[in-house]
Amino acid sequence: MVKTRLMTPGPVEIPPDTLLEMARPIFHHRTPRFRKVAQDLAEGLKYVFQTTSDAIMLASSGTGGMEASVVNVLAPGEKAIFVRGGKFGERWGELCECFGAKGIALDVAPGESVDPLAVKDALEKHPDAKAVYTTLCETSTGALTDIRAIGEIVREHRALLVVDGISGAGAVELRCDAWGVDILVVGSQKALMVPPGLAVAIVSPKAWEVIERCPSPRYYFDLRAARKKLKDFDTPFTPGITLMTGLAKSVEAIRAEGIENVWRRHHVLAEAMRAAVRAMNLRIFPRVPADALTAVVAPQGIEASKLVAKLEKEHGITVAAGQEELKNKIWRVAHMGYVDSTDILAVVAATEAALKSLGHSLALGAGVSAAQGVLAAK
Amino acid sequence: MVKTRLMTPGPVEIPPDTLLEMARPIFHHRTPRFRKVAQDLAEGLKYVFQTTSDAIMLASSGTGGMEASVVNVLAPGEKAIFVRGGKFGERWGELCECFGAKGIALDVAPGESVDPLAVKDALEKHPDAKAVYTTLCETSTGALTDIRAIGEIVREHRALLVVDGISGAGAVELRCDAWGVDILVVGSQKALMVPPGLAVAIVSPKAWEVIERCPSPRYYFDLRAARKKLKDFDTPFTPGITLMTGLAKSVEAIRAEGIENVWRRHHVLAEAMRAAVRAMNLRIFPRVPADALTAVVAPQGIEASKLVAKLEKEHGITVAAGQEELKNKIWRVAHMGYVDSTDILAVVAATEAALKSLGHSLALGAGVSAAQGVLAAK
Repeated sequence: MVKTRLMTPGPVEIPPDTLLEMARPIFHHRTPRFRKVAQDLAEGLKYVFQTTSDAIMLASSGTGGMEASVVNVLAPGEKAIFVRGGKFGERWGELCECFGAKGIALDVAPGESVDPLAVKDALEKHPDAKAVYTTLCETSTGALTDIRAIGEIVREHRALLVVDGISGAGAVELRCDAWGVDILVVGSQKALMVPPGLAVAIVSPKAWEVIERCPSPRYYFDLRAARKKLKDFDTPFTPGITLMTGLAKSVEAIRAEGIENVWRRHHVLAEAMRAAVRAMNLRIFPRVPADALTAVVAPQGIEASKLVAKLEKEHGITVAAGQEELKNKIWRVAHMGYVDSTDILAVVAATEAALKSLGHSLALGAGVSAAQGVLAAK
Repeated sequence: MVKTRLMTPGPVEIPPDTLLEMARPIFHHRTPRFRKVAQDLAEGLKYVFQTTSDAIMLASSGTGGMEASVVNVLAPGEKAIFVRGGKFGERWGELCECFGAKGIALDVAPGESVDPLAVKDALEKHPDAKAVYTTLCETSTGALTDIRAIGEIVREHRALLVVDGISGAGAVELRCDAWGVDILVVGSQKALMVPPGLAVAIVSPKAWEVIERCPSPRYYFDLRAARKKLKDFDTPFTPGITLMTGLAKSVEAIRAEGIENVWRRHHVLAEAMRAAVRAMNLRIFPRVPADALTAVVAPQGIEASKLVAKLEKEHGITVAAGQEELKNKIWRVAHMGYVDSTDILAVVAATEAALKSLGHSLALGAGVSAAQGVLAAK
């Protein structure tokens, strides 16, 4: 008997209480009962993302929220700067191109994080850029972007700061208002601990001004229509009712723990994981790792996919290999959402055993004791 | 103690087995386990909708599927004919307008169904129309469209036949291939008996030819990208994993009952409901009612909202009032998906009691015995 443990960077494990909440009989969405859920969410999400801006719910996966952030902001021919540090940064560029906007790419080597000064330079070179599109945590490499520093720069310009926080938001520190985030996109299946199928968009007053004037065609992802309905805690189209009741449960849990405690927990778990990685004679892939997941460089002679398969088969632990050109070079262990310190010890211990049997040179227990050391000190 | 009974035209009640299936621990979507679910669905949905065409899954509500049927087919400036017989037919017109296409409206009075010959005339008048957009069952009025007859006409033209089957498909007879349906859009929360958040698009070879050549910008709803991934039972973006496992359960149930038996069950239940309505001295609103729901005209002096509130409060039964200008004029009882004959007897009996206490003249038991008569004869 081997238990299953999901440690991929989305979807993540869902608390059993949330699964049971979503298994309750469904109810209609044009009712006071639904409006109460929508209202609790609209308020709770503001707390989670530290903002007084509107929280819009979209029945789509995170990419739908990204599309909404492009088609509501950019008209064909208009310019936007985007950070391209991996698969998800690249998606901003694809969206700009698809809808006829001019995307100015700030290329960042895989595993690197963008230098905020490069954003400053780009904005000075392109003062007509309507937005800067960034990725809080580039899930494909595990790298963290310094949104706070970028926010200080962007707020001096007319451009909007748009953040793909699909991975990371709700796990790592992010203060939308204090940091000047104009649009934040989040997916339900990461730190928010519900299944995929819902996107959240936090939209600032500065962003609404642009959105209300933007002439680009949009219907399903029209944020103006969503805003109108939000006043009555309603939605323009049928909402993802059960996912929203699940999300309300997650938001309740985050409120109970306290958002700063949630960030701190993720930081401590990530520090423990990173100490373990180093103690196993391994290297962390990103230069500035996000606390939501750890991307580890596969040691010489061991393909990442071999380790991933072994963890799955022998330990029931699902982690993710790299994507595309990083496929066999890294593996990625998520520790966001419903994860505690014992989960970290378990995955480290299993990784030690798997690596040893694949021929990697390490002292069994070294990773675990390094992690224990970090956890004990906090 | 009053039990809750959901009889709205979407969402509908979800079988407890499906709720429990979706409450199982989540798993990752880039795995053989997910591909098995996706493959079963891709094949099962073909059976449900009687087609050999591709079944594409979109993580969105039904309107997202409607948008996909517009942005993948029409380029700005191109012409399309659409049937406007209520709120949902109107949505086709809004989508055409939004994305710059020329929508030619075939207006149909509320409660009426379009005359197929009107579609023929429109196609002859507008031979350059790229598509005819229709609604299988106009949920706002309960009217059924004769898709079979329209299909015979449209197949003689180059135009595609697009059917919004969000309500109705899976409940009433619909044979995509035999009837010449090129694109069928279905939502998960109606006859498919899962929560909202998934759309299905059935796409014919004739439609793929148009879609592959269509120059309109689209990203999240790009059916070409979905088709490419479908070959490996994968999706371009994170799919609605739990909703898909739930849907697989529904498809399994429909296969076990047999699609023709499912249609027959819905027909018998609808006939029983309609006999009861007449026996209660009430009038059915649509001239050609769909078997998915029954829209009833509120009797003189009784506002529909009063009856809806009474059914909810005293009997725990949620039905829907009319929408917009039909708000107080009709109420709508859905009997699609997870509904059996005893549900019909219960809602009829409760309606009799509620109407009587609101002052409507009827013989208690008259509706129930009419329904029983229909059920016994089948």
